[in-house]
Amino acid sequence: MLNKSIMDGDNPDLTEERMKGAFDTDKMAAVIYGSEKFAIRRREITESISRIPQLADSKPFSFMTREEKISESCRKLSVLSEHWNQLIDTNNEEEALHLYREVLGLEGHAFSLHETMFIPSLVAQANDEQQEKWLGRAKRREIIGCYAQTEMGHGTNLRALETTATYYPSTQEFILHTPTETALKWWPGALGKSSNYAVVVADLVIRDTHYGAHPFMVQLRDEKTHNPLPGITVGDIGPKMAFNGADNGFLGFNQYKLPRDHMLMRHSRVEENGTYTKPPHAKIGYSSMVKVRSRMAMDQGLFMVSALVIAVRYSAVRRQGFLDDKSREVKVLDYQTQQHRLFPSIARAYAFIFCGFETIQLYDQLLIDVKNGDTSGMSDLHALTSGLKSVVTHQTGEGIEQARMACGGHGYSMASYISEIYGVAIGGCTYEGENMVMLLQLARYLVKSVELVKTGKSKELGPMMNYLAEPDTQIDLTSGPEAYVKVFQHAARRQVWKATDKFHQLMESGQSRDIAWNNSAVELTRASRLHTRLYIMETFIRRVSSISDVSIKKVLIDLVNVHVNYEVLDIGTYALEHVSSTQLDSIRSQLYSSLDTLRPNAVSLIDSFQISDMQLRSVLGRRDGHVYTNLFEWAKASPLNQTHVLPSVNQYLKPMMDKAKL
Amino acid sequence: MLNKSIMDGDNPDLTEERMKGAFDTDKMAAVIYGSEKFAIRRREITESISRIPQLADSKPFSFMTREEKISESCRKLSVLSEHWNQLIDTNNEEEALHLYREVLGLEGHAFSLHETMFIPSLVAQANDEQQEKWLGRAKRREIIGCYAQTEMGHGTNLRALETTATYYPSTQEFILHTPTETALKWWPGALGKSSNYAVVVADLVIRDTHYGAHPFMVQLRDEKTHNPLPGITVGDIGPKMAFNGADNGFLGFNQYKLPRDHMLMRHSRVEENGTYTKPPHAKIGYSSMVKVRSRMAMDQGLFMVSALVIAVRYSAVRRQGFLDDKSREVKVLDYQTQQHRLFPSIARAYAFIFCGFETIQLYDQLLIDVKNGDTSGMSDLHALTSGLKSVVTHQTGEGIEQARMACGGHGYSMASYISEIYGVAIGGCTYEGENMVMLLQLARYLVKSVELVKTGKSKELGPMMNYLAEPDTQIDLTSGPEAYVKVFQHAARRQVWKATDKFHQLMESGQSRDIAWNNSAVELTRASRLHTRLYIMETFIRRVSSISDVSIKKVLIDLVNVHVNYEVLDIGTYALEHVSSTQLDSIRSQLYSSLDTLRPNAVSLIDSFQISDMQLRSVLGRRDGHVYTNLFEWAKASPLNQTHVLPSVNQYLKPMMDKAKL
Repeated sequence: MLNKSIMDGDNPDLTEERMKGAFDTDKMAAVIYGSEKFAIRRREITESISRIPQLADSKPFSFMTREEKISESCRKLSVLSEHWNQLIDTNNEEEALHLYREVLGLEGHAFSLHETMFIPSLVAQANDEQQEKWLGRAKRREIIGCYAQTEMGHGTNLRALETTATYYPSTQEFILHTPTETALKWWPGALGKSSNYAVVVADLVIRDTHYGAHPFMVQLRDEKTHNPLPGITVGDIGPKMAFNGADNGFLGFNQYKLPRDHMLMRHSRVEENGTYTKPPHAKIGYSSMVKVRSRMAMDQGLFMVSALVIAVRYSAVRRQGFLDDKSREVKVLDYQTQQHRLFPSIARAYAFIFCGFETIQLYDQLLIDVKNGDTSGMSDLHALTSGLKSVVTHQTGEGIEQARMACGGHGYSMASYISEIYGVAIGGCTYEGENMVMLLQLARYLVKSVELVKTGKSKELGPMMNYLAEPDTQIDLTSGPEAYVKVFQHAARRQVWKATDKFHQLMESGQSRDIAWNNSAVELTRASRLHTRLYIMETFIRRVSSISDVSIKKVLIDLVNVHVNYEVLDIGTYALEHVSSTQLDSIRSQLYSSLDTLRPNAVSLIDSFQISDMQLRSVLGRRDGHVYTNLFEWAKASPLNQTHVLPSVNQYLKPMMDKAKL
Repeated sequence: MLNKSIMDGDNPDLTEERMKGAFDTDKMAAVIYGSEKFAIRRREITESISRIPQLADSKPFSFMTREEKISESCRKLSVLSEHWNQLIDTNNEEEALHLYREVLGLEGHAFSLHETMFIPSLVAQANDEQQEKWLGRAKRREIIGCYAQTEMGHGTNLRALETTATYYPSTQEFILHTPTETALKWWPGALGKSSNYAVVVADLVIRDTHYGAHPFMVQLRDEKTHNPLPGITVGDIGPKMAFNGADNGFLGFNQYKLPRDHMLMRHSRVEENGTYTKPPHAKIGYSSMVKVRSRMAMDQGLFMVSALVIAVRYSAVRRQGFLDDKSREVKVLDYQTQQHRLFPSIARAYAFIFCGFETIQLYDQLLIDVKNGDTSGMSDLHALTSGLKSVVTHQTGEGIEQARMACGGHGYSMASYISEIYGVAIGGCTYEGENMVMLLQLARYLVKSVELVKTGKSKELGPMMNYLAEPDTQIDLTSGPEAYVKVFQHAARRQVWKATDKFHQLMESGQSRDIAWNNSAVELTRASRLHTRLYIMETFIRRVSSISDVSIKKVLIDLVNVHVNYEVLDIGTYALEHVSSTQLDSIRSQLYSSLDTLRPNAVSLIDSFQISDMQLRSVLGRRDGHVYTNLFEWAKASPLNQTHVLPSVNQYLKPMMDKAKL
């Protein structure tokens, strides 16, 4: 059987779908996860985990309080620590991420920043001596670290950070200090209760000169007692939309002393006498942020996929209403409206993941280049990942919510678990740089590119910017996906130029640079979005073209068709020079046929991601499709049903009703 | 001072905004809430509530478990029961709703279905005798009731409900029965733990003939012990995306006996001998659903406003980045991107509320007409509210999420409370008829309307449908909002006709009615949305035109301008016969100036809703603007900070770190 998820005893409605799949889901998994080898490793790891019963949730996660969620994650981490080496190759980051996700889900845990920000910050920003001192301890998990940058009153604007690290040559110490309430570090993951160390970003001050944001390695809690050290105020910031299994924290310093060599000094330095050496590239301190952003397309793609696994499987099991056969209700997946809700998101998820591969590779390359002293790729990647992060998080949020709504009422229950996935994913619109700010950072790069073209320096354009210098040509819309790329190129070029022109005109009319920029800002964000969506489409098509397996390629081309039709319809108003009202109508018709074409492969396309039931935590998305019985079992097990009559009914409602009867 | 929210000691950033407001917020409240009298009553009620300290939250709601939330609501209901008559005119539904919302918030409570579905069902569907028996008891709250229709396996398709009510003339009883797991009633609010009675919708069966869904009054729990009665399985369905203060429930019957006179018999009847009389109108049983839907534009408008109150106030207090003045960061409300995120939603919220007034009045009129035997308005209102519900819930969800993201990181904290508002509001996309299904119900009505025009029966068109028969004419886009209405009329007309034509052509090509309908479904939903958005825009403009107060009218016209520009840009691709690429560019420029114009009145526009801090439950949205200090206080009070070292750290993390050191 081509679909490897089929098992005896499954809901026949789901097996029927899986039998229709025209390609081998293991082969697709190899495409999705970059190699057959890693796809196999993923399955092996999942299989090994399933043989360790203590790694399973001790009860449904949605029934737990925050304290219970945190405790459950800590318990699992402690079990994991016994099995680490037998489960994964600990030097392989992708294997580690897969393991974390399978065992701990998406909600965060004590080590979530340790792996993704703390260690990478040490790797990128600590010098060799410092790495010698801390990196091994961190990797062995003798200490737990996080990354503390954002403050209560200050987010994306790093220049405004208030926390100071003032250097005193006399004692060769920094004094870390939180001068106001708004200067409290606020939000860092795992800061509140778990971490005993942090990389803290503070404004470096030497002899009254402010050198701006720099990273410092700071011990927060006693290694024996775990109590906060004197001079340190630390705690949890309270419940959030999601990630409630994580202890995002606050942190304040009261004249906290730090030895000189605790400033991370790979790129900038402070000598004993207070002499300051600046980093070779202004943005080099951002590298751990760029790393996280370069992963976001992949991560968000997988969030979207999780929601789609649930929604597509459930849509093959849920029956409602009638089409031709009046003897039995139809699968809701047969409705065009349902396909239109779900399939374009499947296409986007694949596209995001393919983009994610590319940006992760670009980051790895950048890290090598920077080590070799070449920082020239920094601005490119910073711009690309800023835009990508914004577009991908926004579209993922939309897609997940549509997936949830496609599950009707039960989508709203925590039994679907989609709302938790949504909460986690949509956080990405805000963390690691708020989306509007990120779009405007890309816009800065786009405006500069146009200025290069205008001044005859097109040759200096960064990668992916050449289309901005190309002339507008005729497009034959019947020539396939490439024509749609051209439409997108036109739309992006037109908007990038238009926004740049507006910005320039406002300056010429006398507005200051900042005011003119602000008055062009919405147009600039539109330009950034179009540019990024063009990149996503091109990457998707390029990747699919490179595939050799015939049956895999065929279904991916179907997916590309859904994507390009959907995307072009969505941005139609920006490309009216090339698409008329009638053409838009005909693209809509093509979209509906492409949904039809995709229908038989829908379940196999999401099964191919091989996301385990353990990770999904969803009653609706179960691999076996036995939704209803398990929904009832889940509800019966929930805390409120442990007694027939709630204490509050006896205490308040019954006396009230009794009194009313008098 | 024109803005009545100003008080001594407020955050000066907020006071500065309020001083800029060019209109009297009390006067605007009178416009928003329909009359000066009711606007005053609202304030009086809020004021009276504030003098009863037991009605305040005993701790921040977000820190509570589900059990605590439910208990807290029950406690408050019991306090309320002592004060009912002194707080409100109990015959005034709007006063009661205001009271509930102020005291209990949005998260649901034991009486939420009692007031909105249970009593209205008795009013609309019980005959005089039955009302005599139950209505008084319900109104005095001797009993708590809910409305149980949806089943685990069956939502919007009422014909598929599996729960049976079989009549036996021999005993003059119905037997209520749940034949399968999927037939369990699932989702009804307040069913799980609070209610002891329910109006249950079941398939009426007499001598093997199925008469479809009918309402029955059923006792669920013993009035003395509150234990479920024999033959009844009832419980809570578990945690949800939001509304976790409500006990949505499941309900099963095992051959449960019910006397004949417990079927609600105002419209259909079953005689002692089993003779059945059908209702005068097929949809008459839906009237309580239509009632809820007719309220939804108002309710959702208020949800959106709550989020906007928070986001707009916070945006006036939060400072980030620099414009011209480099000495102090600017209010984020000064950014064009922020205005573009928030102001169109303010306009929509006003528009929704004005539409809500109209549909509530239409429902009240319908109820009178139906009592007098005239059911002719039923289909119209059903179609209108179906479309309106879908569009309004979708756009409200979008608006609330944008408001949340406009608050940056802190928007994601439960301290903002916006994610709870979102969860509550977005439920509206699914409850009371899933949005896609609702859009298709309106589409049915639209297609019928086109068929009337095609067959020369334009005179029979329902209200608001005449534009479908009108010819396309030249539009002068410079002539103000009315021109935009014409653009919208064109777009809606074009799409309604196009979708209808597609549907007809597919049938002519040999597809069955149901298949052709499904293959046109996405186009049909687009038609319904455009039609509904036209209605919203027309209602908004009509209402604003009718206002006489000059300063109020002026700012509302500014709001209309934001609205029409934003809306037309959004649907541009459907009206390309009337708006060119260049014109769309110029509408965008107009939109940006209209945002600018609105800027000084933004805070006053949301203050005018006079939503209390108690109801908002938001640290970010506080009237006084003192966000940061209270955010820190809130966090410090949260459960995880009651100890420095969590038990789970001692139990799991510390031993793990210690072991790693060996």
